[in-house]
Amino acid sequence: MKISILKNELNESIGHVSKAISSRTTIPILTGIKFEVSHQGVTLTASDTDISIQSFIPAEDDSQTIVKVEQPGSVVLPAKFFVEIIKKLPSKEIHMEVKEGFQTYISSGSTEIQIVGLDPEEFPVLPSIEENDTVSLPGDLLKNMIKQTAFSISTQETTPILTGILWNLSDNEFKFTATDRHRLATRAAHLEGTESVQFANVVIAGKTLNELSKIIPDQNMLVDIVVADNQVLFKIDKVLFYTRILDGIYPDTSRIIPTAYKTELTLDTKKLSESIDRAYLLSREEKTNIVRMQTLENGDVEISSSSSELGKVREELEVIDFKGEPLKISFNSKYMLDVLKVVESEQLVIAFTGMMSPIILKPLDESRSLYVILPYRTTN
Amino acid sequence: MKISILKNELNESIGHVSKAISSRTTIPILTGIKFEVSHQGVTLTASDTDISIQSFIPAEDDSQTIVKVEQPGSVVLPAKFFVEIIKKLPSKEIHMEVKEGFQTYISSGSTEIQIVGLDPEEFPVLPSIEENDTVSLPGDLLKNMIKQTAFSISTQETTPILTGILWNLSDNEFKFTATDRHRLATRAAHLEGTESVQFANVVIAGKTLNELSKIIPDQNMLVDIVVADNQVLFKIDKVLFYTRILDGIYPDTSRIIPTAYKTELTLDTKKLSESIDRAYLLSREEKTNIVRMQTLENGDVEISSSSSELGKVREELEVIDFKGEPLKISFNSKYMLDVLKVVESEQLVIAFTGMMSPIILKPLDESRSLYVILPYRTTN
Repeated sequence: MKISILKNELNESIGHVSKAISSRTTIPILTGIKFEVSHQGVTLTASDTDISIQSFIPAEDDSQTIVKVEQPGSVVLPAKFFVEIIKKLPSKEIHMEVKEGFQTYISSGSTEIQIVGLDPEEFPVLPSIEENDTVSLPGDLLKNMIKQTAFSISTQETTPILTGILWNLSDNEFKFTATDRHRLATRAAHLEGTESVQFANVVIAGKTLNELSKIIPDQNMLVDIVVADNQVLFKIDKVLFYTRILDGIYPDTSRIIPTAYKTELTLDTKKLSESIDRAYLLSREEKTNIVRMQTLENGDVEISSSSSELGKVREELEVIDFKGEPLKISFNSKYMLDVLKVVESEQLVIAFTGMMSPIILKPLDESRSLYVILPYRTTN
Repeated sequence: MKISILKNELNESIGHVSKAISSRTTIPILTGIKFEVSHQGVTLTASDTDISIQSFIPAEDDSQTIVKVEQPGSVVLPAKFFVEIIKKLPSKEIHMEVKEGFQTYISSGSTEIQIVGLDPEEFPVLPSIEENDTVSLPGDLLKNMIKQTAFSISTQETTPILTGILWNLSDNEFKFTATDRHRLATRAAHLEGTESVQFANVVIAGKTLNELSKIIPDQNMLVDIVVADNQVLFKIDKVLFYTRILDGIYPDTSRIIPTAYKTELTLDTKKLSESIDRAYLLSREEKTNIVRMQTLENGDVEISSSSSELGKVREELEVIDFKGEPLKISFNSKYMLDVLKVVESEQLVIAFTGMMSPIILKPLDESRSLYVILPYRTTN
């Protein structure tokens, strides 16, 4: 293997695959990045067994030469040192040559580096996925759907299936669900052209989807998704992102969403968020995060919290629309703030079926989003 | 105590004193901020016994009313909650009233807060310092002198005196010295109008001076310094910053600075820094940070490092001016990088007296700065 490659393009590509580099050393080869050079360009691969990412650097792009290939070949280079040193090389062009025993010589400007490379044959082969049923959606939409649900996943390894986000696709409706048993977030999108595709109980680790989000560029680019038996492949421009589907059956969450409500309040999202935030500051000191919400006779709501040591916070918030009965409810304000952070709609409806029943949050302009928070069971 | 006060001005003042708030709870009153209201304005005080900071908010400033005082008085409020809630209040004006038993009522917009206040009589009284001999210097210069020496202090509590920066003033020469026994940084400044003032062995904790730096505004404002028996007072606009002088005698560091050199190299600061940084990346993997510097027959220097597992980095750097004998030396590259980060001069001289003798770094345009690094004692 012998090439000259432009530093910026190499760095960008390394940036993509580096999210899959393993820091655990149980499989030493996975602490490296695999280089495969053909006359078409360079393919970088990294894998931590849960996620594998492959990024392709074409030899030419827009008639600009990015890689000059003198000799094809492949090698695995230790990622941690390699990733950092490439960023700091002095010249915009980098020469790489692999010699006897995978010794790799890198030079740039007057800097010469020799790295002990590893045998690329030892690097695991990526799963082959048949690309029959591809779902395409805009990158921005996918990022939004992840952001608006991932915060509700469980962080407890005792229920591994709940550390993932559930995906369902049928009748052009693509739906994400996340729950940690105390709260639930769902977000759906209507996807044209997916009539022939459907799947259910596809659960992908929330952590993995957050990493995927970082790779999706800000320009509104289509992301292709291929769901296979136990793997999902994402295709984003020149990057392939593979992840495994979590084992197990995701619990049925449809039961906990009420269909009729006793009380519905329409509120300003930003004002509610700021108000809960102030009450949260005090409730946090009590470790419970409990905040109370109570309708007032003048039609507004009171938001309050108290701490035996520190004091009290109390304020009134204007209700834009009020339907149903008066109410008084306590909840974990941190969970409410998590929802309010991702709601983009200027107004939302909070709906209740009783003091001990789930609290529903429905953003007014986002009919395909719905959030549920279980109330805090208090005796007074 | 009953006042109305503008939120921004209160927040700014809280920001200043909050650097002295104690998080340890051995003296509960010190987890609070003391409010003292007179008809002239509001004085806030916080102290963690090592540092005490006082900030004054005048009732009027530039003919704008900042504080409306209805009733003078004082109270101590729990800092952690108070600092955060004030930032998040909805209106730009805040009303505060202290009632029976130091219960404090705060309101802003429709937010009402009740805080359990503490008795201000329990708050320690700040030391009184006679302001006979004041040294004045520009805030920018003081910040620079701190930045260019503080990185060399010791972090080991076993030699407490070395966790401080030594100050000496005589013959208008104000000098800072810091050392952790492996390296030394000195920076001096000529101060006009200080003929009548002199002091020696004034040692102030590096941590404290870094906190002080954050309070000094970016506008080039004069800072007044008053050195008393065991305290130093800094006056910065409306802020008073008190700190204690560390106990003990600072070691004599003059011996370790050589007066004659065998080799002197003039180098480009930025190029040297980037070169050492690359070699450091590899040496760091060996935990030793050892980098080698060696003069070449062509008059340049070679900078290199190696790791048995990973490989080698080697590069050549142009020498702008070369005096004396060839040399080969090993050193801790982290220490060298720490110096290179704070040097503002475009070129610097590295001077050596032998393989086992201290390495001297002298920025070309900063004749009052000097840095010393002890070499790594290697056998080859």
